[in-house]
Amino acid sequence: MKIIHTIAELRAWRKTAGSVAFVPTMGNLHAGHLALVAQARAAAEHVVVSVFVNRLQFGQGEDFDQYPRTLEEDAAKLRDAGVSVLFAPSEQELYPRVRQDYQVEPPHLQNELCGQFRPNHFRGVATVVCKLFNIVQPDAACFGKKDYQQLAIIQGMTDDLNIPVRIIPVDTGRAEDGLALSSRNQYLSAEERREAPRLFRELQAVAQAVQAGNRDYSALQNAAAHHLQQHGWQVDYVEIRTQGSLHIARLGDTRLVVLAAARLGKTRLIDNLEFAAE
Amino acid sequence: MKIIHTIAELRAWRKTAGSVAFVPTMGNLHAGHLALVAQARAAAEHVVVSVFVNRLQFGQGEDFDQYPRTLEEDAAKLRDAGVSVLFAPSEQELYPRVRQDYQVEPPHLQNELCGQFRPNHFRGVATVVCKLFNIVQPDAACFGKKDYQQLAIIQGMTDDLNIPVRIIPVDTGRAEDGLALSSRNQYLSAEERREAPRLFRELQAVAQAVQAGNRDYSALQNAAAHHLQQHGWQVDYVEIRTQGSLHIARLGDTRLVVLAAARLGKTRLIDNLEFAAE
Repeated sequence: MKIIHTIAELRAWRKTAGSVAFVPTMGNLHAGHLALVAQARAAAEHVVVSVFVNRLQFGQGEDFDQYPRTLEEDAAKLRDAGVSVLFAPSEQELYPRVRQDYQVEPPHLQNELCGQFRPNHFRGVATVVCKLFNIVQPDAACFGKKDYQQLAIIQGMTDDLNIPVRIIPVDTGRAEDGLALSSRNQYLSAEERREAPRLFRELQAVAQAVQAGNRDYSALQNAAAHHLQQHGWQVDYVEIRTQGSLHIARLGDTRLVVLAAARLGKTRLIDNLEFAAE
Repeated sequence: MKIIHTIAELRAWRKTAGSVAFVPTMGNLHAGHLALVAQARAAAEHVVVSVFVNRLQFGQGEDFDQYPRTLEEDAAKLRDAGVSVLFAPSEQELYPRVRQDYQVEPPHLQNELCGQFRPNHFRGVATVVCKLFNIVQPDAACFGKKDYQQLAIIQGMTDDLNIPVRIIPVDTGRAEDGLALSSRNQYLSAEERREAPRLFRELQAVAQAVQAGNRDYSALQNAAAHHLQQHGWQVDYVEIRTQGSLHIARLGDTRLVVLAAARLGKTRLIDNLEFAAE
């Protein structure tokens, strides 16, 4: 596995490589990321993984400075996973003028769901992914469904800007008790970790209620949020939306997804569950 | 020369082609466009020219509906000029959902100079060029210096989003009397056409005054605007800026450009002149 730090070296390597599948990450890799890598390996001759903690997608008061940077451990895992190139650019390399003057501006969806609580986050995500796509020029790229809204925005950007990359959605990796794998799980205390799987259980309960015929989405959302609050969670949202496009779910929509974001102590967790109504 | 109307067919052709230089246009081609094509031919094995009147860059009350569409004549000229592919997508092909949800957002420069008088124009330009670059995937692309601010924004976008396309600036083609070649010149009455070269002469006068040691840029700009007004022009702006970046020119800047936009009757003309101070 090559470790490449500069755009010029990555471009030179790309010229000699055949098909490439790409997995953009912020590092601190866990089994969820390795599932993305496994999918990527099945999609192309070479896998490129980027590790870059993207300042543009962090808000004020978020954990940019504290975000764990573990490049050596990440490299060892990626080498074992059969990755061809680990691309780890410096901040200077991706943002040479500090300011990113030209940005990809997503539609209003960027201000809904998680976007309501993280202003400019999805613009920052879309912009850095657009840059990385232009640098790596992959044939395909893998994104986890755990970050469902991110996946929707990347897919929307790719379609709308005619970016020649096939987006491969990858199912969420979970611990045995159902908790979605996330770099942020490590911030949880032992007690919080025992409580954390409730988030997914509430999503399952919402899906089951809809499938059992309950169509009062507002009441279901509020009930799930209330249960979480009763157990010490601060809830940002629980929402039922349409799969893929993330429109507000209406009666008659059958391909649904329920998404939630809530904080346990200082740790913000997100999760979602796709399901079919009827 | 192939005439291609769909993205799928263009992508299929692209896979078989070697190096490509690209010239995006809105059609109604004149000698200025053919100079871009000539530069493109020198830059790559194949030249692709797009003809697409981009609704996104026209404002309310602008001439989108009236913009001349002359595809047959354009095709004949491009065939003679040795172009490999004329890409002429329908509006449905580039904007299948009518709305373009994801856009490239340029920095504040988009609201200065011409942008002050054409809200959203440069966002529309940047977005369609980003889309066309992703579809054509050229090695290089040619843009005329006549649309100097457009060139600056395309170059900025390409750098800032790491788009793997080399931008080739091409000098402005001019009639014998100095008038910059433009599709909009055909809107001029005979009398207006005789008056039109004054725009470039005023730019030359500003450049000469600066080169002669006059550093009162505001006074020079105002004098040029006043001369034009005296001859029946409605002046949007005359401004001295730095070359390339288009920053406000300050004492000590030596690579300058003077840009102007003004209307003769209903026809809005723009022009510019690069020059060195000292």
